[in-house]
Amino acid sequence: MTNLYLIRHGIAADREAYVGHDAVRPLTETGERKTGKIARRLYELGLRFEIILTSPLTRARQTAEILKEAGLTDNLEEFQSLAPAGELSAWLDWLTHWSPPEAVGNLALVGHQPDLGNWAETLVWGQVRERLVLKKAGMIGLTLPRVGSPIGQSLLFWLTPPRFLL
Amino acid sequence: MTNLYLIRHGIAADREAYVGHDAVRPLTETGERKTGKIARRLYELGLRFEIILTSPLTRARQTAEILKEAGLTDNLEEFQSLAPAGELSAWLDWLTHWSPPEAVGNLALVGHQPDLGNWAETLVWGQVRERLVLKKAGMIGLTLPRVGSPIGQSLLFWLTPPRFLL
Repeated sequence: MTNLYLIRHGIAADREAYVGHDAVRPLTETGERKTGKIARRLYELGLRFEIILTSPLTRARQTAEILKEAGLTDNLEEFQSLAPAGELSAWLDWLTHWSPPEAVGNLALVGHQPDLGNWAETLVWGQVRERLVLKKAGMIGLTLPRVGSPIGQSLLFWLTPPRFLL
Repeated sequence: MTNLYLIRHGIAADREAYVGHDAVRPLTETGERKTGKIARRLYELGLRFEIILTSPLTRARQTAEILKEAGLTDNLEEFQSLAPAGELSAWLDWLTHWSPPEAVGNLALVGHQPDLGNWAETLVWGQVRERLVLKKAGMIGLTLPRVGSPIGQSLLFWLTPPRFLL
């Protein structure tokens, strides 16, 4: 069984200051601090990830590093398709080659909206309706089916705004 | 704007001991204690409800009373259609007659599975797929649209198992 956690990056600097350079837009100081609190809370709740895949964009990469520093994982890798408008199918390909070391695999993806919400809806309901509210530093928890494609077959067990984790 | 919270009753006594008397099956001692902790946590998080409607069944009624005792509402009413296999349409009728006293109305419903999950899926996606995992004393948070039918038009902003609230 695989539990998949989709985590949106924390609060980042204004878009206006990074026109043409969105990929390097960093977390703000508040974003770093709040993401750190969330990460420590997730650690307290007992969450651990065999691996975190992150969008290569700075704000996501920084968020993933904060999660790693809090002890949530030892393995952090960039994954190109987690960048904005990336393809879910690329990640599904990756998943078919992933062997969780334990009976229950816990995976986390750090990325962007609306992509993460769209991926979650596709996995759970097989279609995108944009009905999930995923705040910055918020997260979604899905359980993937043991066999077969996870598309339209996954269960949603968690969706939380950060304010309910602080 | 109305935020709707769907809350499943806490851990109840074994079905086997109440065959033919399911309506009076009570919370266990553990169920009462854990539901009390959840209720206090919800209070700390700042949640307040203008009204809680509850299924008339004992385990739901007790759960709702615990929420009221924690200060989450002053108004608690039984609502027949929150009993198992109740009709969402009956609650939607009730909703059209409800005038929230504030610009943001916060409503809570206490009831049973699979009904609450089915109601939530109907409100968010317009169809039931049984893809939401709602544990005992877990909750779902929806934002209903300002105008028009909430069916297939509501947003899901929260779904949490109780363990992430303790």
